[in-house]
Amino acid sequence: MGFSFELIKTCAQTGARRGRIITPHGVIETPVFMPVGTQATVKAMAPFELEEIGTQILLANTYHLHLRPGEEIIRDAGGLHDFMDWHRPILTDSGGFQVFSLEGLRKISEEGVEFRSHIDGAKRFLSPESATAVQEALGADIIMAFDECSPYPCDRTRAEEAMHRTHRWAKRSKNAQTRDDQAMFGIVQGAFYADLRRESALTLAEMDFPGYSIGGLSVGEPKPVMYEMLELLSDVMPREKPRYLMGVGSPDCLLEGVSRGIDMFDCVLATRNARNASLLTSEGKLNMRNHCHITDLSPVDARCDCYLCTHFTRAYLHHLFRAKEILAARLATWHNLRFLTRLMEGARSAIDEDRYGDFLRENARLLE
Amino acid sequence: MGFSFELIKTCAQTGARRGRIITPHGVIETPVFMPVGTQATVKAMAPFELEEIGTQILLANTYHLHLRPGEEIIRDAGGLHDFMDWHRPILTDSGGFQVFSLEGLRKISEEGVEFRSHIDGAKRFLSPESATAVQEALGADIIMAFDECSPYPCDRTRAEEAMHRTHRWAKRSKNAQTRDDQAMFGIVQGAFYADLRRESALTLAEMDFPGYSIGGLSVGEPKPVMYEMLELLSDVMPREKPRYLMGVGSPDCLLEGVSRGIDMFDCVLATRNARNASLLTSEGKLNMRNHCHITDLSPVDARCDCYLCTHFTRAYLHHLFRAKEILAARLATWHNLRFLTRLMEGARSAIDEDRYGDFLRENARLLE
Repeated sequence: MGFSFELIKTCAQTGARRGRIITPHGVIETPVFMPVGTQATVKAMAPFELEEIGTQILLANTYHLHLRPGEEIIRDAGGLHDFMDWHRPILTDSGGFQVFSLEGLRKISEEGVEFRSHIDGAKRFLSPESATAVQEALGADIIMAFDECSPYPCDRTRAEEAMHRTHRWAKRSKNAQTRDDQAMFGIVQGAFYADLRRESALTLAEMDFPGYSIGGLSVGEPKPVMYEMLELLSDVMPREKPRYLMGVGSPDCLLEGVSRGIDMFDCVLATRNARNASLLTSEGKLNMRNHCHITDLSPVDARCDCYLCTHFTRAYLHHLFRAKEILAARLATWHNLRFLTRLMEGARSAIDEDRYGDFLRENARLLE
Repeated sequence: MGFSFELIKTCAQTGARRGRIITPHGVIETPVFMPVGTQATVKAMAPFELEEIGTQILLANTYHLHLRPGEEIIRDAGGLHDFMDWHRPILTDSGGFQVFSLEGLRKISEEGVEFRSHIDGAKRFLSPESATAVQEALGADIIMAFDECSPYPCDRTRAEEAMHRTHRWAKRSKNAQTRDDQAMFGIVQGAFYADLRRESALTLAEMDFPGYSIGGLSVGEPKPVMYEMLELLSDVMPREKPRYLMGVGSPDCLLEGVSRGIDMFDCVLATRNARNASLLTSEGKLNMRNHCHITDLSPVDARCDCYLCTHFTRAYLHHLFRAKEILAARLATWHNLRFLTRLMEGARSAIDEDRYGDFLRENARLLE
């Protein structure tokens, strides 16, 4: 079973899309939120729990796994799926964003990026060819072309240069592929310049990737600026290919992104915030360290069907956070991931029924 | 359903006992190892996982729960069982051992122990009466009389004084009980003096507790010294009552303790060591941080049926420990607890079949 995408329908009320991605490790109903398993584990979660909450696909980080344990070890273990015991689809990023983020520790050239490992300071090099080779060793179902992300704000010259390099690197990444069972996505760049974004989308479309990512957003810009970029891109990106908005996953951005035609999202925020006691609920965020929860025998979210909300009280979770117990991080992560998964389940049903606009209004609390 | 103990049989080869404890929250087959849930959670584990590995009863700490979150909150939540979502039996200690361990922060008088909280330094007081009241609010199935533990080494005068006080406090603890659905165990003290230990066991037996604990062992003495105490106690403690060796739980001590007639054990070592990457196996201990595991695709223990050993490799667990991932602590704890639970399952079968002596020889590796 290779890779394919079917656009099932577009909502009559909005631009929201219902789709289905088929991969060697199974089917993904879109729109979908992908939890992040940076180091071959979604922090605090076990694979069987991710299955239980309805996770369809995980993201893992090429940069981190390249440095530790190294892709050879994972390849020898049978690939990432066997290594981490996750047998549903996996997506790996190219490492581009991570090395880009190593401000001061990296040097970009046409050949690739020289950088120093954040673990031991050792000099390393990633290029379109090596990033592709690493991703082939990891063996994800969906992999990314190596790109250069531009920051916010970013002057036009720098944005244009990064975009053109991203296009050249996209071609080189594609040419470097030797496996035919992994779908490589091209990454649209162009910072916050509408014409560059359009040019990037069209240029990559000509290369005929099986899917397209939108990189370089959610890097510090106001949300309306990001939404504007998504709107213009929704008109120029190929309709019949999946669209993945990288690194975006707050409830409001998911809802707004879906209405602008995004099919896939990933973000570490829900899991990171969970470990910091910040829980997503249908009534807004809760800080579980807050003293007000100390005697509260109600669930975190009465409308949630997760293990935390159906078995434990706010008082107990508050106690676990105060006592610095590992179970606090576990239950909070479980809940936040289930919350986003359920939100996307609701979005899919709403699109199926041509009422995604109504769904947005029903979830107005999350858009505040 | 109240509390009862049935001595099913004594092994023909050794002094090992097979028993059955009935409590309001269910049956406990003995000998049994009890995982420790100090702060109303077994560190890194969720209740459903403890059920899955065959945990029959948990221990929770009165001292810790009294300080945080406070017993009133737990009582209002419906007791410890509801608070932590554990619906099998629970045992609470009296807090005596913890306040005794606050060397320099506590003052013992006939009335009780004044101490400073390790959390905020606040002055607190525990007595036989208040320790019993706290335990009644927590609502465990089995509770402990408040005792004074003596250290190792300990001069005879101090040991004798602590023992006599423990006996007076045992009587006061018993008199302070107002609930009839909790079984209070008396705690045998007497340091390492054979005659004191005998006197303590006999004195407490006269008070007719539903079970007896052995305190003040495993406090730094050589293991043979502890075994000697267990041997002499096995002759004087009431045969028809359960015998609980407090704070002991390494594989060798479990095996040796069972052969000397101990029915119940608890210890934090298996869970604490797990978080420090030390794993129990049928071949001895493994340090999972050791570099030799980096490419090892075998399970931690091929003879183990736990989630870790049936789903993951040593290479993966090694990676998780190096990467400081929460899942490392989870999988390691799961395994170590399953290891001890399985060891006790084996012990029970062996006693049932009058071959506990053979069982000891089969597990000689664990006695080294």
